[in-house]
Amino acid sequence: MSTKKQLHFGAFMRPASIHSCSWRYPDAFSDANFNFKHHIRFAQTLEKGLFDAIFMADHVSLLNMPDEALKRSATVVSLEPLTLLPALAAVTEHIGLIATASTTYNQPYHIARKFASLDHISEGRAGWNVVTSSNPLEALNFGLPEAVEHDERYKRGRECYEVVTKLWDSWEDDAILRNTETGIFADLDKLHPPKHKGEFYAVEGALNVARPVQGWPLIVQAGASEAGRQFASEVAEMVFSAASTLSTAQEYYADIKSRAKAYGRNPDHLKVFPGCFVIIGDTLEEAKNKKRQLDSMVDPSTGMGSLSILLGCDASKFDLDGPLPEIPETNAVKSGRQKLVDMAKEDNMTVRELAQYVGGSYGCLEMLGTVSMIADQMEEWLNSNACDGFNIMFPYLPQGIDDFVDKLVPELQRRGVYRTSYEGNTLRENLGLPRPKNQYCD
Amino acid sequence: MSTKKQLHFGAFMRPASIHSCSWRYPDAFSDANFNFKHHIRFAQTLEKGLFDAIFMADHVSLLNMPDEALKRSATVVSLEPLTLLPALAAVTEHIGLIATASTTYNQPYHIARKFASLDHISEGRAGWNVVTSSNPLEALNFGLPEAVEHDERYKRGRECYEVVTKLWDSWEDDAILRNTETGIFADLDKLHPPKHKGEFYAVEGALNVARPVQGWPLIVQAGASEAGRQFASEVAEMVFSAASTLSTAQEYYADIKSRAKAYGRNPDHLKVFPGCFVIIGDTLEEAKNKKRQLDSMVDPSTGMGSLSILLGCDASKFDLDGPLPEIPETNAVKSGRQKLVDMAKEDNMTVRELAQYVGGSYGCLEMLGTVSMIADQMEEWLNSNACDGFNIMFPYLPQGIDDFVDKLVPELQRRGVYRTSYEGNTLRENLGLPRPKNQYCD
Ligand SMILES: Cc1cc2nc3c(=O)[nH]c(=O)nc-3n(C[C@H](O)[C@H](O)[C@H](O)COP(=O)(O)O)c2cc1C
Ligand SMILES: Cc1cc2nc3c(=O)[nH]c(=O)nc-3n(C[C@H](O)[C@H](O)[C@H](O)COP(=O)(O)O)c2cc1C
Repeated sequence: MSTKKQLHFGAFMRPASIHSCSWRYPDAFSDANFNFKHHIRFAQTLEKGLFDAIFMADHVSLLNMPDEALKRSATVVSLEPLTLLPALAAVTEHIGLIATASTTYNQPYHIARKFASLDHISEGRAGWNVVTSSNPLEALNFGLPEAVEHDERYKRGRECYEVVTKLWDSWEDDAILRNTETGIFADLDKLHPPKHKGEFYAVEGALNVARPVQGWPLIVQAGASEAGRQFASEVAEMVFSAASTLSTAQEYYADIKSRAKAYGRNPDHLKVFPGCFVIIGDTLEEAKNKKRQLDSMVDPSTGMGSLSILLGCDASKFDLDGPLPEIPETNAVKSGRQKLVDMAKEDNMTVRELAQYVGGSYGCLEMLGTVSMIADQMEEWLNSNACDGFNIMFPYLPQGIDDFVDKLVPELQRRGVYRTSYEGNTLRENLGLPRPKNQYCD
Repeated sequence: MSTKKQLHFGAFMRPASIHSCSWRYPDAFSDANFNFKHHIRFAQTLEKGLFDAIFMADHVSLLNMPDEALKRSATVVSLEPLTLLPALAAVTEHIGLIATASTTYNQPYHIARKFASLDHISEGRAGWNVVTSSNPLEALNFGLPEAVEHDERYKRGRECYEVVTKLWDSWEDDAILRNTETGIFADLDKLHPPKHKGEFYAVEGALNVARPVQGWPLIVQAGASEAGRQFASEVAEMVFSAASTLSTAQEYYADIKSRAKAYGRNPDHLKVFPGCFVIIGDTLEEAKNKKRQLDSMVDPSTGMGSLSILLGCDASKFDLDGPLPEIPETNAVKSGRQKLVDMAKEDNMTVRELAQYVGGSYGCLEMLGTVSMIADQMEEWLNSNACDGFNIMFPYLPQGIDDFVDKLVPELQRRGVYRTSYEGNTLRENLGLPRPKNQYCD
């Protein structure tokens, strides 16, 4: 067995590809985002490639972009993650299934129940990506006049997390007896209704689902702001970071692990997965050409839409060929906005250039090249405290997945930095994470 | 092709059996309610038996029964319906998938999204059982001090239904273009955000799921009160009735169909399915013995629990060997309570006798006997305007399903009153129901 630090991979699969023009790429499935049969194929291939998990992002609304961009976006129709993942659980055996669910727009009893059910159906493969939701259109679909303010969202998120984990612990692991002789089905001495009364939630009764196979489904977070990082360092076991350079990734990695340690956690029990957009070519030039071809399909209006989301204001009003103007404090994702503002200043970019940059793959970390170049880069990140694995974003489907699994995975295995079979039975076991104790037991 | 009126079957599968002691029956799966592998076997056998649909009841809490009954109940742990059904969609091809979702404890945007996603994943097999939820423990899990009052529940239910159906119509059927040449993914002229502002809900934006395969998933209801019957007659396409005698079933059937007609609907587009508990024997005596064996396992405390639910008050305080005392007006299911009160009066039943009656299979319609006796009885109901089909409750699993599919189904086919293959591709097509037009189109 290799003693080298091992790479782990999540697959960012909702939307099916992060690239706004993946659906137009030659031979790609243009309905990749919305065709269940395709999703089966993707999941089974990723499992063959020994990925730790499939990750489904989520928004409870259309994305907030101008019509010119919206009509070009494959995200307008997609399958709800907690409906799609149970279906994929039935046709896979090992791969983890991580769904995003918003603490701002979901009641904790529903979250706890659905993830616990998914964990049982998949025999221990569920994960919850805890998000607090920043898209203002979501609020309008739930009777609120505007997005909940950033700090309040995190307060609510923390309490929701607290209630959900209490609900998962409602039943002790050995509470379900099913004794056909005595007729006693469950030991009520091992039942612990949360009786929670907090600032945002009052939840009296126990969950009507047995304790999850994993104890708790895996806790995933992607907080980037101060409040978000602190929350992630306290509760997350997997963190998705948006770092696009080695140095920002190292800063994030050090920060989040030291916060976890300061909070009294074992920092090894918090895995950091930067999002990573991978294009494999037989040569660097071929990989770059694929990217160029993809980006060339991006309509400028789509870039403006993404830019508006990232900045939290309507960028279409700016002078396309001028520099980025000052932007007032908004409710948008803080770190993402700052990164763009800094980049625009440093590189003297015009609004148009910024829009083109984010319009394709949202300006995330990219690894383009031959398998050996990409393997080198991944090893470098892994061994320089920048990450514990990557959340892979595929450029188009199914070819992006097939290339990764057929070409890159064997190379990483050859180098001894990637598993040749799943180590355990559950998502936690494969990631080397402990099963949480029930908080109501000693 | 037979010109006889045809039987249709739903399978009542959550809890896996309605009978409180099914899990203790010899050779039955004691974990039928909570083992996904078993659910696959059940679903595939039901599909072999050409059932129209699997039906999953739901409550967002433990059931409200005293601890003595609760600890004997297999319902304490079960899988959430909208998590379980997508998983079953992946391993079946024809059978309909009906999940219960409460309009009192779910936001319409979530309901619309999940059922639309299930309809796409299953290629047109989803159905929504619209319930308003009467269990007071559910309220306590969602921050409410007590159950919402009956009339208010139905007002909210109607508005929720209205918003959900608007959301399903957000996109016209041909709105998704996916034109890889022009880069236009969706035709926004065919997008209709509901912009709903009502008494209970404000929902501005469109659904981020394409229009369901069936237009709308099948609408199912089980209203029994005045408000419930009227709602069902206006919107339901399948109604679950709780009639336990031919005459009450005929009354219900005539009433609900004439209400539908008065409302301007084609009464054939509303199918009535009484719940029906079936035990098959080689002889009548054998079937009766199976029932006796099952009921003999019922602890009196379990009967008291069910009785308390049905009456909406704690029956354990009553004198076990006295008559049923006067019961104050409660928030419980009105019709169910009245039926018991009337029965107790008519037959001079004690509280103990009532408890034993409901403790096993909740006093629902029972058909016990040989296949030919049961086939006779089903034909009689079908041909005397008492039903369009039955929602079958199995006494224990898997034997109850196997007996039904292997023995009763061939007999019904021989008589020409049951299909020998599925007629269509969707749940609606198999039931002979039309696909709803989009309300935003002419
Ligand atoms: C890889 C990745 C995936 C994300 N997925 C979602 C998502 O599905 N839904 C969502 O509302 N936010 C999503 N986010 C946003 C984060 O939850 C978070 O709000 C963001 O990183 C900014 O951090 P902050 O909330 O601390 O300001 C994602 C972020 C990243 C980096
Ligand atoms: C076969 C059947 C299944 C039902 N399933 C549920 C259920 O899963 N959840 C629920 O809250 N109510 C359920 N009910 C209750 C009905 O939704 C309804 O409340 C009840 O029939 C009484 O009618 P009313 O609401 O008009 O008083 C069911 C009723 C029947 C007959």
